[in-house]
Amino acid sequence: MRIGKNTIRFEKPVYIRETYSIVGPKEGEARFGSYFDQVMTTYEWDEKTFEQSERKMHKTAIEKVVEKAGLNQSDIGVLLCGDLLNQISASAYSARDFKNAYLGLYSACSTIAEAMIIGSLLISGGYFDNVSCSTSSHFCSAERYYRFPLELGTPRTPLSQWTVTGAGAILLSNVAIGPRIVEATLGEIVDYGIIDSSDMGAAMAPAAAINIIQHFKDTGRSPDYYDLIVSGDLGKYGSELFRYLLSQEGYVLKDNYFDCGAEFYGDDVNKKQGGSGAGCSATVFASYLYPKLKNHEINRVLFMPTGALMSKDSSLQGESIPAIGQLVVIES
Amino acid sequence: MRIGKNTIRFEKPVYIRETYSIVGPKEGEARFGSYFDQVMTTYEWDEKTFEQSERKMHKTAIEKVVEKAGLNQSDIGVLLCGDLLNQISASAYSARDFKNAYLGLYSACSTIAEAMIIGSLLISGGYFDNVSCSTSSHFCSAERYYRFPLELGTPRTPLSQWTVTGAGAILLSNVAIGPRIVEATLGEIVDYGIIDSSDMGAAMAPAAAINIIQHFKDTGRSPDYYDLIVSGDLGKYGSELFRYLLSQEGYVLKDNYFDCGAEFYGDDVNKKQGGSGAGCSATVFASYLYPKLKNHEINRVLFMPTGALMSKDSSLQGESIPAIGQLVVIES
Repeated sequence: MRIGKNTIRFEKPVYIRETYSIVGPKEGEARFGSYFDQVMTTYEWDEKTFEQSERKMHKTAIEKVVEKAGLNQSDIGVLLCGDLLNQISASAYSARDFKNAYLGLYSACSTIAEAMIIGSLLISGGYFDNVSCSTSSHFCSAERYYRFPLELGTPRTPLSQWTVTGAGAILLSNVAIGPRIVEATLGEIVDYGIIDSSDMGAAMAPAAAINIIQHFKDTGRSPDYYDLIVSGDLGKYGSELFRYLLSQEGYVLKDNYFDCGAEFYGDDVNKKQGGSGAGCSATVFASYLYPKLKNHEINRVLFMPTGALMSKDSSLQGESIPAIGQLVVIES
Repeated sequence: MRIGKNTIRFEKPVYIRETYSIVGPKEGEARFGSYFDQVMTTYEWDEKTFEQSERKMHKTAIEKVVEKAGLNQSDIGVLLCGDLLNQISASAYSARDFKNAYLGLYSACSTIAEAMIIGSLLISGGYFDNVSCSTSSHFCSAERYYRFPLELGTPRTPLSQWTVTGAGAILLSNVAIGPRIVEATLGEIVDYGIIDSSDMGAAMAPAAAINIIQHFKDTGRSPDYYDLIVSGDLGKYGSELFRYLLSQEGYVLKDNYFDCGAEFYGDDVNKKQGGSGAGCSATVFASYLYPKLKNHEINRVLFMPTGALMSKDSSLQGESIPAIGQLVVIES
């Protein structure tokens, strides 16, 4: 059923049966390092290109989440995949090795939430028993695809974020194991005219604010309703903007809020505003949030990854950055 | 409910309430010319870049399908969009001008079917009353993004296809107007090792064959069950390959089969194997097939757009082309 304008509630239960996270070496040493399932030994990971390395990572996440859940690959109904490469090629080249139906998704760094939403439609609708949601990003390929190739040595600007090298997989199921995805608020695209492709926090904060406010209006809730509110990759500055925009509308975020990007690399100043990328919120959810939900340390989580929907071409053509937040509510 | 391995049936009815198609000047003079709703005057269409032209086309398709259905933009629950540009930017930049929830999809030239599948989940699940599915492609931008910029004047190879400049929008609804989407067979990714990025027909034919055979196995049907079987952008050579692969498995396609790409430009030899692109099957469905379904000239259609999931980067790195077919069954 729908609640209000953009919020939907999944009537038949959708369970998050298992998760898997794999990250790059530096990510493995950062804030969430001890939570990840696997850390790559190098960024190349014995592959010839960064694209192949990302693909290997993405494919590993899909394989391992199925294995970790004690299932076979043939038990998976659909692979819902997305990434940041042009034509989401990391996803397609990962999924071609499995004999599973495939749906390719793109919502930039919020893709994991889009996958969880569409996966929930498939499970709640009674169409499939298990679906896999997975997203990835790789710092070395993302910089080339969105800004400058690393080989140029272009200095990073103060407002930039660091694309997380990582892949997260989330296995949804109709079997009553793990926390439930109960609702989603689908995001609208918002563009506040930011043209600096490094300053994604400022582009995404308004979209995130508008979507969470829509969620509060649709449901009649306030931020206090949730044990934890987690936004995607707004970064340090972006998440402050997000807090400010919400406070202007009367919604005050307290200690029950954090942003995956702002927290990802802790206080590492080289990472500027923090992490971003389709692998950022996906790996944080898979590694850090999921176990806390599963063992009831937290019971109600609002999880809203955010995405900056520009391309390198649109940035070079002087376009501003459209952005989006996709929101799911998880209860255990 | 699910039928067999990859086929799903939408229990609550999903209607195709309206469609809209808009194409480029040459497309307006080709085989389906008299069926399109709108023909652009030039490929630039008063815009500075081909990307902006594609966006204008995509946005127009969304606006006009809503208007043609006698609805307001606020009646639309979700925009399901995709295109061929990097990071599907035509979709994001089109959708940012509407205050509608958005889900970005990428399945190359089969994206319109992916949108119809996910749109059907949203309508059949009772979540929204109306959703818009739209995809676009533009010859001038696609050549640059997938192969060579037009300015290079690179000769076209005999097996190449011509990206259709066009956008199609399909409005799904729970209101009993128009034909119904009754089933879908979700495609698996298939890669037969084709490395020539111009030879998409050979890459896509096996994926198309495997998916339609899965559909026949899942449902126990044969090709004769359908008034019309329409594949996406296999092109002339690709659709012959597709026929051959099916015949080897005992499924003989007769006169009730055609391929959108093979037919799009008629016998124009400059277009080599025919049309392709996310706008190809979308505009053919919106302009040519939909009215025939609506007035019961045909009553059972199997519509299976196909997609080649490589990127320019994967091609330059010597990778073969993963491909997919996404299949929907429409009845009136």
